[in-house]
Amino acid sequence: MKTITSFQNPFVKKIDLLTTKSRERQREGLFVVEGLREAGLALDAGYEPRQLLFDPAFTDLEVVHQLCSLSVFADPEIIAIHSAVFEKIAYRSGVPNVLVVFQMPQQALEQVALPENPLVLVLEAIEKPGNLGAILRTADAAGVDAVLVCDPATDLYNPNTIRASLGALFTLPVVSASSEIAAAWLKERQIPVFATYLEASQSLYSCKLTGPVALVMGAEATGISPFWIERAETRIIIPMQGKVDSMNVSASTAILLFEVVRQRIMQGRPGSE
Amino acid sequence: MKTITSFQNPFVKKIDLLTTKSRERQREGLFVVEGLREAGLALDAGYEPRQLLFDPAFTDLEVVHQLCSLSVFADPEIIAIHSAVFEKIAYRSGVPNVLVVFQMPQQALEQVALPENPLVLVLEAIEKPGNLGAILRTADAAGVDAVLVCDPATDLYNPNTIRASLGALFTLPVVSASSEIAAAWLKERQIPVFATYLEASQSLYSCKLTGPVALVMGAEATGISPFWIERAETRIIIPMQGKVDSMNVSASTAILLFEVVRQRIMQGRPGSE
Repeated sequence: MKTITSFQNPFVKKIDLLTTKSRERQREGLFVVEGLREAGLALDAGYEPRQLLFDPAFTDLEVVHQLCSLSVFADPEIIAIHSAVFEKIAYRSGVPNVLVVFQMPQQALEQVALPENPLVLVLEAIEKPGNLGAILRTADAAGVDAVLVCDPATDLYNPNTIRASLGALFTLPVVSASSEIAAAWLKERQIPVFATYLEASQSLYSCKLTGPVALVMGAEATGISPFWIERAETRIIIPMQGKVDSMNVSASTAILLFEVVRQRIMQGRPGSE
Repeated sequence: MKTITSFQNPFVKKIDLLTTKSRERQREGLFVVEGLREAGLALDAGYEPRQLLFDPAFTDLEVVHQLCSLSVFADPEIIAIHSAVFEKIAYRSGVPNVLVVFQMPQQALEQVALPENPLVLVLEAIEKPGNLGAILRTADAAGVDAVLVCDPATDLYNPNTIRASLGALFTLPVVSASSEIAAAWLKERQIPVFATYLEASQSLYSCKLTGPVALVMGAEATGISPFWIERAETRIIIPMQGKVDSMNVSASTAILLFEVVRQRIMQGRPGSE
């Protein structure tokens, strides 16, 4: 097993670039997942690992091998990293932890399989990795069938997104696509578009959401673009009181998705509870 | 009008300390609000301003006077700041903006007035200012009557909390108290406690939430403490699917508060829509 003891090691520098630079991730087609749980979810979901880095002072080799056994792929190259170096490249050191380099998947809309009454979440140009990650975590909990990330303003494989998602990025089909392609895909599958819109008149709580639903959420500052407003079969508003009159996009998404969950539970949709 | 041109000015250094150090805020009993909208909400809510800082290159004095007219107090000391200095102490520069130093209010539980079927939010030891701010914004939108911040792990007047709340910190009665005092206050008013708990068996959607409700939310990592679990009349769970099996506390709070909103709208509670 290779052991790295110096921060000057070129591979360590590459890891550092992959975690900090979106351009480097795109150029290499690689990204880094930190954490036993997060890496486990990615391996379990069929992402292909290239290298696995761990600090033998805090993580047993046996734990590493158990983790690798979750994958259908051959074991990645396993590399031991001295504590002083691991501390510099990891978010959490001094505890059981791994960094796994994965190949970026080629995810295509055509490969997404949907159930009968699908719940699709369309995210348009979300800017903050923390918001995107929290939304993916909520989408996982709500049983969303697919997440379409349109015209992304932040990189899906940003470490802050992965961390905030607690690995939900890997448990859901998450596909990047242009808004045009995503809208055509939804139309072809006859999935009606619901868009939140402050000037809408239909309250969320008067909407029937037990059939197919594509819920579109817009950017933090600007909201949903005219493109999606025009394509929305239903424009809905969350009835708000108060003086601030807006919510964080992650909070709004949670309210909307769980109103879908609630209506489906009430209707007795199998598998919803 | 005083004009400050140097970053070495002692008052500028004090502003910098007040924005960055919780201890300094506590020691001085002062905090800083940035933004026309946020400062306007604080002035409108009766917070007492001490100084107002602005950059005349980007903010008209007339705008500053309009802002001050929202307050019942005498105008604060108005101080012009050169762009190069304003840029260093403000989060946003080069746009219309103000920094206002406020006196910390003496908020006491006894002063909180509640309507007939109150909705009280109890936040126990929330750690991240961004989460706390987003939750306050959601609480404002849900028409929460009071927020009790128990055993706070983050300072209410942290600039990141104020920013993430978009000023909702000022539109709601937000009171810090120990868990013991908060629990006694709720009991005295016969407001039943609802706590989310992963091991609970009662689904959120089978709970009647149209009467008085005190909803307790716990810390990001550890959840609700045994103290509040024991005191909860009802332990509820948000029915979750997926593999990650947890949500961000701000997302969970949004789902819970808006289920209360929904039930009250459906019941035709006046003023809810």
